[in-house]
Amino acid sequence: MLEELKKEVYEANMELPRRGLITYTWGNVSGIDRESGYFVIKPSGVDYDALSPDDMVVMDLDGNKIEGRYKPSSDTATHIELYKKYEEIGGIVHTHSPEAVAWAQAGRDIPLYGTTHADYFFGPIPCARNLTPEEIDEAYEKNTGLVIIETFETRGIKPMYTPAVLCANHGPFTWGKDAAEAVHNAVVLEEVAKMARNTELINPKVKPAPDCIKEKHFYRKHGANAYYGQN
Amino acid sequence: MLEELKKEVYEANMELPRRGLITYTWGNVSGIDRESGYFVIKPSGVDYDALSPDDMVVMDLDGNKIEGRYKPSSDTATHIELYKKYEEIGGIVHTHSPEAVAWAQAGRDIPLYGTTHADYFFGPIPCARNLTPEEIDEAYEKNTGLVIIETFETRGIKPMYTPAVLCANHGPFTWGKDAAEAVHNAVVLEEVAKMARNTELINPKVKPAPDCIKEKHFYRKHGANAYYGQN
Amino acid sequence: MLEELKKEVYEANMELPRRGLITYTWGNVSGIDRESGYFVIKPSGVDYDALSPDDMVVMDLDGNKIEGRYKPSSDTATHIELYKKYEEIGGIVHTHSPEAVAWAQAGRDIPLYGTTHADYFFGPIPCARNLTPEEIDEAYEKNTGLVIIETFETRGIKPMYTPAVLCANHGPFTWGKDAAEAVHNAVVLEEVAKMARNTELINPKVKPAPDCIKEKHFYRKHGANAYYGQN
Amino acid sequence: MLEELKKEVYEANMELPRRGLITYTWGNVSGIDRESGYFVIKPSGVDYDALSPDDMVVMDLDGNKIEGRYKPSSDTATHIELYKKYEEIGGIVHTHSPEAVAWAQAGRDIPLYGTTHADYFFGPIPCARNLTPEEIDEAYEKNTGLVIIETFETRGIKPMYTPAVLCANHGPFTWGKDAAEAVHNAVVLEEVAKMARNTELINPKVKPAPDCIKEKHFYRKHGANAYYGQN
Repeated sequence: MLEELKKEVYEANMELPRRGLITYTWGNVSGIDRESGYFVIKPSGVDYDALSPDDMVVMDLDGNKIEGRYKPSSDTATHIELYKKYEEIGGIVHTHSPEAVAWAQAGRDIPLYGTTHADYFFGPIPCARNLTPEEIDEAYEKNTGLVIIETFETRGIKPMYTPAVLCANHGPFTWGKDAAEAVHNAVVLEEVAKMARNTELINPKVKPAPDCIKEKHFYRKHGANAYYGQN
Repeated sequence: MLEELKKEVYEANMELPRRGLITYTWGNVSGIDRESGYFVIKPSGVDYDALSPDDMVVMDLDGNKIEGRYKPSSDTATHIELYKKYEEIGGIVHTHSPEAVAWAQAGRDIPLYGTTHADYFFGPIPCARNLTPEEIDEAYEKNTGLVIIETFETRGIKPMYTPAVLCANHGPFTWGKDAAEAVHNAVVLEEVAKMARNTELINPKVKPAPDCIKEKHFYRKHGANAYYGQN
Repeated sequence: MLEELKKEVYEANMELPRRGLITYTWGNVSGIDRESGYFVIKPSGVDYDALSPDDMVVMDLDGNKIEGRYKPSSDTATHIELYKKYEEIGGIVHTHSPEAVAWAQAGRDIPLYGTTHADYFFGPIPCARNLTPEEIDEAYEKNTGLVIIETFETRGIKPMYTPAVLCANHGPFTWGKDAAEAVHNAVVLEEVAKMARNTELINPKVKPAPDCIKEKHFYRKHGANAYYGQN
Repeated sequence: MLEELKKEVYEANMELPRRGLITYTWGNVSGIDRESGYFVIKPSGVDYDALSPDDMVVMDLDGNKIEGRYKPSSDTATHIELYKKYEEIGGIVHTHSPEAVAWAQAGRDIPLYGTTHADYFFGPIPCARNLTPEEIDEAYEKNTGLVIIETFETRGIKPMYTPAVLCANHGPFTWGKDAAEAVHNAVVLEEVAKMARNTELINPKVKPAPDCIKEKHFYRKHGANAYYGQN
């Protein structure tokens, strides 16, 4: 069942330790098959060394396990909310990558300071608010997803233009058209977070990059007039 | 004698350089067999490359060497005090891992800034006070253990809820139910120390994470209602 | 055609990920054959793992593709302006190496703080101004080259004495007598940028190194009286 | 001639890139045979990949080449002054390791903040003053050695108790009883420099560690009452 997607999601999960984003089991990747409405996600707390494509868990968007011998990631309910709200999302990643976590713990958006950021994210990486004690008690992981959505909706951010968020005092989620692209964005986010930290250390009064640079670089890689790469 | 434990402790010691926590011989891991009351510890100042399970030294809790051709770690007396006071501790690690050492040298607790920390430590990582000149002269390593205990007792910290400490101007000790878990906690401490440093650089006015987040994440992984992982 | 140069440029490109300067496809190296007036450059957005010498694109200085099945790097027009203006330049590199990018995003020259810098660069690494919206709209990559030239000309910096520049809110370009030397300078720039950041963290009131040190070290390695190395 | 010493010095040189202290050819190690008065040093500007024990250059303390097909390190005259002044020194290292260079460029001693430092260096790592323009012109490398000696003599520092120095705006030299120990001390210095930088970032008002800690840890490893290790 969904063998191809399981392989893709497995490969995307294994890319996380290869890229240095993961300590122990601190991360998860999922990918969705929009036709069936099922998605595939990493099992909870299983060592990366021990994973195989067959260990991936198949879920539906109501949170029912469709197939798999393991329990799905404890963050599954967050993935579900994002998939339900945003049809364009095909893959989701959560990590505790240290540079992005530092911004999340600091409770700050990552400002857009340059073209490395603008090549992938059309504006600051937003930092979503903390959940209230009631939201945590009621349904922590589901409400984490809803607070991410609240952040994008109230601030008018397009999720496919800025495919990343920081959850305050927690860490980053990223997404993309599929699991591989979501991981790619997680790698870029970590690099951008590190560059932004060092930028502020070098110049504490630095301002974000001008909008014309943001627009030039984003549209050089994205949309109808893109001319980066071979397409 | 205690062949299985020697292998466990040997493997736990070898994990330190693999995880990048160790320069030269700057660290030691021990594990205890509570039935016999004997514990197994790394020899002092021997290269990791040259170690084998048979080189591990067997000691009793009075500091007598029971078996082994080498002298035990110079920090053995610190391990003894912790094993004697806290029955739940099954393994202990000491390193000079650089991020944790920086907090120890700074003389500060590591504040709980997020879920990465709360997944493992139920509150700040305490920084134990310096020893007095008299305590150093009298019995440096033993008194290091006693000052760690003093820190946990006077501050009312449960050692299995916060299995790590910083010794001022020195470095970290961590522990766990066995040697492998103690090493796991040493790895997490180093990651948490790095994240906390960068968090404060990004936001010098940052406050610790709310208690509701601390409690949610700690109890998601620990205790009767834990639901992280496959158990 | 230009088989030897293609191999050189290919090798110089492959050195970038080996030296840790590159994430994904974020960089490009070119080298020029001054006799024919043709230069060879990496194709746009192709994975380093998939590259071969034959994938290198041959261009002329008017921006015409002479040979190659791929589109050239999107930064090709920047390379062209530098080759046209400065006859001594034989190879050019662009990266998003994180330490140099942090200075570019901070909008600051890298001060000459010591001999590591002075061994390669005869003064601060200049940070070129941002392009205006009109310059971006008209011809972004070409005007990037022209703003680099403007920086060197108005400030009286000799490009072969200081073979590196930071483009504000973007990142570094370096060059040299050939592609390999340009990459060498990119590696040194990254190291110098990191050292300079840490120097200012350790001493926020630090001043640049005295001119006598700059001159001693630069001329120890460069020019008629050089005595470093085996020549 | 001096085949054993050449091998030792070759191995000590090769340890520098393995330990991550070296970019390109930015470093050199020497070792001395006190009986003959000859010392062996790395050739100038030769790639580490291309070195063999036979490439090491044999010199006398008057600066005459005794054997070797290469020119010796451009820093040879600095090594000579240290060997002539301090009979106990058996090996010397110079690097541009980035954390130590940052302190040298900042023009600051590295304060003794903890036991990692005190295990090897009995007090702050001194930062030697800049050379005057006249000293540079007259004999740069020789005078670098003389200024290091001036630093130790005027401040009353014992070179075998604190076997390291920072040359202002330049970088570190370390030494030891032989070439291998000198490299060991270069590795420790880099680690200590990084820890000290981060210590100050975490606590800008931090004070050096108490003398009783310095003395306890130094004498635990050094001198007649040492009890660290297997001797």
